[in-house]
Amino acid sequence: MRAVELIRRKRDGLPLAPDEIVWLVRGIASGEVPDYQWAALLMAIVWRGLDDGETAALTQAMRDSGRTLDLSRFDQPKVDKHSTGGVGDKTSLILAPIVAACGALVPMISGRGLGHTGGTLDKLESIPGFNVRLSPQQLDRVLERCGLALAGQSDEIAPADRSLYALRDATATVESIPLITSSILSKKLAEGLDGLVLDVKTGDGAFFTEPHEARRLASTLSRIGNALGTRTVALLTSMDQPLGWSVGNVVEVRECLDTLRGSGPADLVELSLRLSAEMLVLAGIETDLRSAQSRARRALDDGSALERFRAVVEAQGGDPQIVDQPDRLPAAPVQHVVTAPRSGYLARLAARSIGHLTMQLGAGRPRVDSPIDHRVGLVLHRKLGEPIDQGEPLATIHAADPTAALHAAQQLLDLAIAIDDEPPPPAPLVLDRLA
Amino acid sequence: MRAVELIRRKRDGLPLAPDEIVWLVRGIASGEVPDYQWAALLMAIVWRGLDDGETAALTQAMRDSGRTLDLSRFDQPKVDKHSTGGVGDKTSLILAPIVAACGALVPMISGRGLGHTGGTLDKLESIPGFNVRLSPQQLDRVLERCGLALAGQSDEIAPADRSLYALRDATATVESIPLITSSILSKKLAEGLDGLVLDVKTGDGAFFTEPHEARRLASTLSRIGNALGTRTVALLTSMDQPLGWSVGNVVEVRECLDTLRGSGPADLVELSLRLSAEMLVLAGIETDLRSAQSRARRALDDGSALERFRAVVEAQGGDPQIVDQPDRLPAAPVQHVVTAPRSGYLARLAARSIGHLTMQLGAGRPRVDSPIDHRVGLVLHRKLGEPIDQGEPLATIHAADPTAALHAAQQLLDLAIAIDDEPPPPAPLVLDRLA
Repeated sequence: MRAVELIRRKRDGLPLAPDEIVWLVRGIASGEVPDYQWAALLMAIVWRGLDDGETAALTQAMRDSGRTLDLSRFDQPKVDKHSTGGVGDKTSLILAPIVAACGALVPMISGRGLGHTGGTLDKLESIPGFNVRLSPQQLDRVLERCGLALAGQSDEIAPADRSLYALRDATATVESIPLITSSILSKKLAEGLDGLVLDVKTGDGAFFTEPHEARRLASTLSRIGNALGTRTVALLTSMDQPLGWSVGNVVEVRECLDTLRGSGPADLVELSLRLSAEMLVLAGIETDLRSAQSRARRALDDGSALERFRAVVEAQGGDPQIVDQPDRLPAAPVQHVVTAPRSGYLARLAARSIGHLTMQLGAGRPRVDSPIDHRVGLVLHRKLGEPIDQGEPLATIHAADPTAALHAAQQLLDLAIAIDDEPPPPAPLVLDRLA
Repeated sequence: MRAVELIRRKRDGLPLAPDEIVWLVRGIASGEVPDYQWAALLMAIVWRGLDDGETAALTQAMRDSGRTLDLSRFDQPKVDKHSTGGVGDKTSLILAPIVAACGALVPMISGRGLGHTGGTLDKLESIPGFNVRLSPQQLDRVLERCGLALAGQSDEIAPADRSLYALRDATATVESIPLITSSILSKKLAEGLDGLVLDVKTGDGAFFTEPHEARRLASTLSRIGNALGTRTVALLTSMDQPLGWSVGNVVEVRECLDTLRGSGPADLVELSLRLSAEMLVLAGIETDLRSAQSRARRALDDGSALERFRAVVEAQGGDPQIVDQPDRLPAAPVQHVVTAPRSGYLARLAARSIGHLTMQLGAGRPRVDSPIDHRVGLVLHRKLGEPIDQGEPLATIHAADPTAALHAAQQLLDLAIAIDDEPPPPAPLVLDRLA
């Protein structure tokens, strides 16, 4: 095969055959297809797209470029969830213990945060001692002990995806639904899952702000996952305001502990239970979403999910005492309360701006190699549509120093919030379901 | 500047600023913009195009990536011609001596042939001793002695174009009108010309078979050349049948000598005189095309063009005796006459197929590094629309051995020609003029 002929074909809008895609992906590692040819091909794919057959072939080839987990010795059904990334999105830390407590195995392999959205691994690492770098043997032991594991992607999982992602990042070819689909699924399907739930965010704080694009991604993820033999459901969910009250790392872990104790913010509880219910149905533990949701709720109410969380913290080397004494988590030196400049209803709480200001505080990564300050972030005291009086606390900024806190407070007031006389119309959290 | 942001901008169909394009082109040599980023950018340009401002900036930046000729010590107006490549296109060897004989300076720097179209340098090198690799000093001396020079592109001319062309060739990004335009003009404008005529071919044997695409290229070449300060005219000309009777190297040089002696094929004479006339008007030697064409015709008729050709052959180390004794040129061992399989009118003489079969005989290069057999080729005895009787000579194949000759004869009859009862409607040679 000649790469230039395959690039030409895609450039002209014609499909590639599965064996051609396999050859191209193998060529990344072998060097037979140099990165400049892949770069041109990636841009042609952004332009012309990939059909489902091509997307499935690409996903499979990238998955098969590395190691896959063998969890066959575990009897439980294996399920996982992946989110396309949101501000304050911490559902993984809640639903993984819930679903494990309900009897499924959750081998959750996550990424780090980049840009204005946080990463599960960064949040977990704000727990002193918590180790996300698990060897296959360690992962196996944690899964056996807890029914769940919260680990980072090893270099052995889908290495072709890592190479291609770096190339996409350098060549402005990230924004392509088939490329995003194959990148997400190649890693998740390497976990050997029975079922996968995808939380595809849309709105101001999401990668795809436009619902129709996010819906196309959700639909493609669901079609390709199912075509490759893993039962896959995608929910389209709103990311117009941060999920829950807190955005950061330590502050989000605290909120997860509150939620696992039964006092979480309504939207976070709702979404965590809904995603848990989807996972339980895919796992075959429940047959319908309603009973699955009740079962998930019971795991929250009876403390069994919290116990799973405590177990996984301990199993992965973290300090389990933070579960009962969250004050053992590191705290930011400055806590600055921002008050409402006027009375009314909170009409805007722009997720993207809030994500950016917490990133600037040090809670997120502007670049892949940026350091993170786990202590900093922001806690909201009101959510969209709630009434507030002038001078009441609107949010608390957790910062490393007073200058950073003041800057963040100013950005919050200038860019992220609006208070109106009327409440905004209520908006649903789950917008669509694609299975 | 960050290359990825510029790629993103082009990907989204937005224009790049001139200084951004300069930075990108400089980044090729400096390594600051790696080839994979350029590859993605090239595909985005194939997709989104470049506007005139961008194309002009790219052309200038590529021209300025290397050395430009300083011909300011010559008093004559400096003009040149470039063809996008055709089968049997040998006008350079005829018009350069004509235009020089009429008083202009013609510093013609040409390329080698690739694929089914021939290259001027290859044709010249079929003259024993002819040296196309001239140092700047040698070029200067040849120009002084002859008023013309027929040289190859040195590595110092537009090196960015050479790098980009190799990358385009490997990434299926050759087919882009602004990229073709900047590649052609960056080299030609490095010659420091007052005027430039472009012969843009269209039809079966041309790079752009579709007239509307070729016209767009012609129009872009003319606009950008003029915008960059060189008076530029582009002719859109037909390449449905080979130009003249002969296709190859030695056979084409013989035909040029015949033409310079006044007995050339009608279409070759017509196009050579028309292009010469355009050059003479651009040079300011004549004010209108009609009188310029008469002057060019006189240079042919009075032998002054032939004397210029003899002078340049001698000045560049070639055997000047070939001018009076063309039999001194090397001849192919096998000359096989193909006869007409039926009587009628020649209705089809497919340029591309004829180009391919002469390439297979060894007259052209399937790859950049393929060797050339200057002796081989084909001489037609009839052109489109001419009557022929069954058994009359249709063409003579010049081949290295009988097997190759028979194969070429079969291809000619099977793929390239058709004889009908009626002559085809006459078609013009010059289809349009864009200035």
